[in-house]
Amino acid sequence: MYSGAQISLYPMTGDFVGIILGALSALDPYRERMQVETDDLSTLLVGPPEVLFAAMRDLFVAAARSGEHCVLHATLSRGCPGEPDDAICYTTEYGGPRQPLEERKAAALGSVSAAPVTSTSSAAQFSLYVMGTDDHMDEIYGCIDFLKQSGVFGGAKNFCTRLDGDAGAVFAAVEAALCRFGPPEGHVTIDLTVSANSPTRR
Amino acid sequence: MYSGAQISLYPMTGDFVGIILGALSALDPYRERMQVETDDLSTLLVGPPEVLFAAMRDLFVAAARSGEHCVLHATLSRGCPGEPDDAICYTTEYGGPRQPLEERKAAALGSVSAAPVTSTSSAAQFSLYVMGTDDHMDEIYGCIDFLKQSGVFGGAKNFCTRLDGDAGAVFAAVEAALCRFGPPEGHVTIDLTVSANSPTRR
Repeated sequence: MYSGAQISLYPMTGDFVGIILGALSALDPYRERMQVETDDLSTLLVGPPEVLFAAMRDLFVAAARSGEHCVLHATLSRGCPGEPDDAICYTTEYGGPRQPLEERKAAALGSVSAAPVTSTSSAAQFSLYVMGTDDHMDEIYGCIDFLKQSGVFGGAKNFCTRLDGDAGAVFAAVEAALCRFGPPEGHVTIDLTVSANSPTRR
Repeated sequence: MYSGAQISLYPMTGDFVGIILGALSALDPYRERMQVETDDLSTLLVGPPEVLFAAMRDLFVAAARSGEHCVLHATLSRGCPGEPDDAICYTTEYGGPRQPLEERKAAALGSVSAAPVTSTSSAAQFSLYVMGTDDHMDEIYGCIDFLKQSGVFGGAKNFCTRLDGDAGAVFAAVEAALCRFGPPEGHVTIDLTVSANSPTRR
């Protein structure tokens, strides 16, 4: 199954190019396990979710450590029928045959508990889209229920869910949303925004 | 049908707060026809698509005229089963009974031709998600076919479509994508990124 993300990093400073270039080395440990392709709008990452999310997290944390207000946006997708399969995307994270919702929620909570601590505070919001099924709202409500128990739930917003907490747990929660909800072979996408160092108080 | 957007504006400069506050007056002509609610991550706009897109376009253009590299991101949604209906969202733009795809493509092309010229160059990418139907890829391919004829098609990318051109035509093309594709009463969302003044050459 093809999986990947179009990611963009927005440091709100005149030295945005310097911060982006400085943070890019955070991707180096992952480059053998994913494809990377950059243009003027975003960087395409193609690989399995466990590599994509670790790479995005480390890139975000590296930029946030500048102390500047930085935002990472990602358009994530797995199982798009319009994309060819690719061996680099192989993963066992989708869990094979569809499991009961409660088991998937428990697995998702386990992933967040096991997430590394980055000591970087983050605020995030994301939307989960499950396509090609009649029961897409059941999956979304199941995911929201998991998020409410995850320790990083920041509240419901129109069209998305807010998360607040250490970047390690926040990225782990979004990864679990992509992997554990929606059919294992389904077309599932996420629209993700993660922010650090905002001068606006919540 | 409930419709709206979570929008964020990212000026890549130390004076990002000044540029955002300066651009906000561009929303004033639309405030009576939409709800506006801001937090530290995004601003919620609730209203019909013809108001949402005009407001987003004018906000983006106002920020881009600073000359700084600016990006607007929007998470757009219409018809989400989890949102209550709201009278402020009333519109006739979804076209009533489902029309044949060719008629909808022609209507979409007409909207782009009639778009105001802003004299602000923009580069955009967006993903259209149609939920709750088995034929979501037919709608997406129909939309891509319209975009290829729209005059602002900038190329296919993984997970999204690129647009390049005057911000007036670019926002009109994305509005047409939201309104003309997917069932009139369906749950349709868009993940949109629009950029101006990037120092990176395409």
